[in-house]
Amino acid sequence: MDRNELISLFNDNFPFWDHLTERDKETFISSSQHISFEKGTNIHNGNYCTGIILIRTGSLRLYILSDEGKEITLYRLFPGEMCMLSASCVLNNITFDVFVDSEENSDCVVVGGCAYAALAEKCNEAKIFALETALTRFSDVMWVMQQILFMSMDKRLAIFLSDEISKNKSDTINLTHEQIAKYMGSAREVVTRMLKYFSSEGIVELSRGGIKVIDKKRLRALTI
Amino acid sequence: MDRNELISLFNDNFPFWDHLTERDKETFISSSQHISFEKGTNIHNGNYCTGIILIRTGSLRLYILSDEGKEITLYRLFPGEMCMLSASCVLNNITFDVFVDSEENSDCVVVGGCAYAALAEKCNEAKIFALETALTRFSDVMWVMQQILFMSMDKRLAIFLSDEISKNKSDTINLTHEQIAKYMGSAREVVTRMLKYFSSEGIVELSRGGIKVIDKKRLRALTI
Repeated sequence: MDRNELISLFNDNFPFWDHLTERDKETFISSSQHISFEKGTNIHNGNYCTGIILIRTGSLRLYILSDEGKEITLYRLFPGEMCMLSASCVLNNITFDVFVDSEENSDCVVVGGCAYAALAEKCNEAKIFALETALTRFSDVMWVMQQILFMSMDKRLAIFLSDEISKNKSDTINLTHEQIAKYMGSAREVVTRMLKYFSSEGIVELSRGGIKVIDKKRLRALTI
Repeated sequence: MDRNELISLFNDNFPFWDHLTERDKETFISSSQHISFEKGTNIHNGNYCTGIILIRTGSLRLYILSDEGKEITLYRLFPGEMCMLSASCVLNNITFDVFVDSEENSDCVVVGGCAYAALAEKCNEAKIFALETALTRFSDVMWVMQQILFMSMDKRLAIFLSDEISKNKSDTINLTHEQIAKYMGSAREVVTRMLKYFSSEGIVELSRGGIKVIDKKRLRALTI
């Protein structure tokens, strides 16, 4: 990735880029790294400041983890989006540990947290942008929380499968029950039981490592 | 409450107060209302912009609500604190519905959301303050979420009771099982069962409408 590509990426993604002095732009550029993460890599584990992760290709998954190793997926990030919660230097108000994994091979640019924090002290627009980006995710997390706490499992699974097929533009979902359980913050047994129920109802067809939705109308009906 | 008291309250609670022009201060003052809420009043219900609620005496409880009426308490606010999530005009990024009740007779000052939002457009410090105040609560909410999702009920109840006795500076907790269940986002039956277990273990003594902690050491041990 050359310098011009990097500058164009920053210009597209940071609305305050034009407000920066040439010197600040240089600091910003020199504190940034272009990194390719292999599928399944743990990128951030809650204990230190990894920086702001800008996604060019691939996808990242943010989750929280219990002492016993139970995961709850908070949300996923896609190309053009950025992970702000991994920049604890920038966001002093965030005191919880969040984990970030690459779900696919992901091409990213990581902006150093300390450099950004120093910039945010001088440039209100940079500070506001960081806070707003983080706060927007608050709503996503509340949505997940409400799904988990309030919704019955059939409804939750139906929403998950519907989202998957519209996202993938395919009726087949190539995820194991274990993976689905992880994404939903549930147990594999619960997902398997519910999928068997959906299958017995003729809503899905199950095969090794895959789920095919055969009655979209009834699946959608369950999501309401 | 007279004008000088109001100005002194704003000066103490809004770090940007001194940055405002006299005219902006006037707008701020005239958009504010001094309101006393009776115990148990629903102050905000997620659908409109109530404004920023500054608490002088009493306490407020923030919670989310399922379609079936199940509540999850997110956090409580005490004198000197303020509720920012009730000001949807100020925080466009917050898209979830939050409910606010007064838990005691509460004396509050409510700052109009639109007036604050207009000010935040002109004054970066006011914008940053609103975002930071809201974002700090993100961590509180994540804490609740982890408690509910990851922790076993005995630990959660022990933490709740410990917090109550240190907050009230008394070994007696005057809450019904129903109220405790509401605060914990659990069911009354679950709370009653666990309290009976604690009682049989000699940790608490149960009486009508009250719980007395008689073995603090063992209660604390359960919280770890």
